[in-house]
Amino acid sequence: MEYIKIAVDAMGGDNAPFEIVKGAVRATENNDSIKIFLTGPKDKVEAELSKYDYDKERIAVIDAPEVITNDESPVNAIREKKNSSMVVGLKTIKTEECDAFVSAGSTGALLAGASTIAGKLPKVMRTPLAPLIPTKEGNLLLTDCGANVDAKPQHLLQFAKMGSIYMENVIGVKYPRVGLLNIGVEEEKGNALVKEALPLFKECKDINFIGFVEAREALSGGVDVVVCEAFAGNIMLKTYEGAGNVLLGTMKDTLMASLRGKIGGLLIKGPLKNMIKKFKADEYGGAPLLGLKGLVVKTHGNATYREIYNSILQCVTFKEQRINEKISEVIQGGSSE
Amino acid sequence: MEYIKIAVDAMGGDNAPFEIVKGAVRATENNDSIKIFLTGPKDKVEAELSKYDYDKERIAVIDAPEVITNDESPVNAIREKKNSSMVVGLKTIKTEECDAFVSAGSTGALLAGASTIAGKLPKVMRTPLAPLIPTKEGNLLLTDCGANVDAKPQHLLQFAKMGSIYMENVIGVKYPRVGLLNIGVEEEKGNALVKEALPLFKECKDINFIGFVEAREALSGGVDVVVCEAFAGNIMLKTYEGAGNVLLGTMKDTLMASLRGKIGGLLIKGPLKNMIKKFKADEYGGAPLLGLKGLVVKTHGNATYREIYNSILQCVTFKEQRINEKISEVIQGGSSE
Repeated sequence: MEYIKIAVDAMGGDNAPFEIVKGAVRATENNDSIKIFLTGPKDKVEAELSKYDYDKERIAVIDAPEVITNDESPVNAIREKKNSSMVVGLKTIKTEECDAFVSAGSTGALLAGASTIAGKLPKVMRTPLAPLIPTKEGNLLLTDCGANVDAKPQHLLQFAKMGSIYMENVIGVKYPRVGLLNIGVEEEKGNALVKEALPLFKECKDINFIGFVEAREALSGGVDVVVCEAFAGNIMLKTYEGAGNVLLGTMKDTLMASLRGKIGGLLIKGPLKNMIKKFKADEYGGAPLLGLKGLVVKTHGNATYREIYNSILQCVTFKEQRINEKISEVIQGGSSE
Repeated sequence: MEYIKIAVDAMGGDNAPFEIVKGAVRATENNDSIKIFLTGPKDKVEAELSKYDYDKERIAVIDAPEVITNDESPVNAIREKKNSSMVVGLKTIKTEECDAFVSAGSTGALLAGASTIAGKLPKVMRTPLAPLIPTKEGNLLLTDCGANVDAKPQHLLQFAKMGSIYMENVIGVKYPRVGLLNIGVEEEKGNALVKEALPLFKECKDINFIGFVEAREALSGGVDVVVCEAFAGNIMLKTYEGAGNVLLGTMKDTLMASLRGKIGGLLIKGPLKNMIKKFKADEYGGAPLLGLKGLVVKTHGNATYREIYNSILQCVTFKEQRINEKISEVIQGGSSE
């Protein structure tokens, strides 16, 4: 039997290598079809691995003595640290040694390195970062939240196609509804980019396009894939995270300030736990970068073993569902050049 | 003594004319320096007014038989409904009959009509909509959230100058910190617009510029005026509102689903009330449109009398602090042409 081969950046993020290695071990315990390649300084990663009783045939270490940190310039880091855990991981996609790569390391460096090192699928113009974010009803895929700003209408259309395929096949939403992020829903609203993109979206037969959507309404539900240029996507994503921090943080401070609040807080803790879980990234795995030769998944910098574990399983679905073949078909058959 | 004259759109928003008239009456009761002109169908507004024992010298009605709704095209509505409560109100700014105009009506129509009907101050290029939004530490002014997208760097610089003057003189934040909204804080990050704007902001002596800010960090505090192009501003504003709805709504549903949650919910209701108040627009008044010949304030469509009341008092501060004179000085003395 041939394994699904997944490279994992053992040195990426705040909790490396401990949580990363734990997540990788757990994933091999729970899924027989994967083989994991941990990238990082061999001695350090092996020392961490030695704490577990793991299947030695299914977890290997690829030596990568350097580490890219969040403090350095992403572009320079990718260019100069050829032996870093991230660059070595991305190379396994280019050489087809692995099917997917998971990293909790610097987002900037991963975005900078993904298309140049791992390589894009033919005719894919840009490779969007597409996190899944929770809504009142479920989730939506927000694409693009990456670093390549000032997108063209044709780029947006490719994001829509790739996002739809991902949402349908990996997340399991049939016939996903695609909305184009705008500041109003009327056709005359918006900037030059979305106005130019609108007819392309309307004509496209590969997506289930429902029109312009506004940020507030999108978060209530009713749309599965929200397409936007990366600047707007990043603002939406970061505002959503920031709003959660402000609201939950202020609520906690408020409750702790009175006895009544403290008691109430204790009582609601249980019921709220599941709710907060819904808003935590760990349960979903990371954000995919779409349109690359393999799947690259960016998890949060503070990812725990659960997010790493879920991200690895996400890669399995991606491979089993032949997402890249489907993306290639739609992008190459499409009218978006 | 000369009154500060404030026009109020008696027919704007979901709660018109009831809450609007109530807010106007309350404002005259609490502040002796204002005179209010309610615009709307004379009979209807007077019937509402007759429910109160109010100072007849200080509340007048200007007959405006038409009403602009949220369902019609903003631009057409402004053009065609010359006798609407909104257009008549905006005209009182142009003719200098009033110092300020408050409306809870269609945002689109108000934005479309403000600069064409009320008129801009000399050398002001665009008139940004600048709502105050709550952060973990206090508030920030987000400018521009309006409808004029695809701004130029020079526009952003004017937004920064006008926003600083408003924040310092109306909200009382000394030497307000100005941040330029971006998707990273490093100088090489961002789209063409913010990169071009950066040197202009750095050189400008009229603002206390602290550099690029990210949406998530801005919401934690540390910045008083966040400057952005309207598309990004609208996404940030609407996402913030949407996130609040999703979080508080989901929390309520979660608590109501169990007895323990219900009891806890009852206990925390009191302590949380003040916190939620902080996040409610009513306490702050509406969002100013800056750079017009008078102040135009947009309140929420569902504004209660409290928001109308606070918006009217906001106009008093605006006038007393001579904001428009200060804006004119800085814009005309500036290097932003």
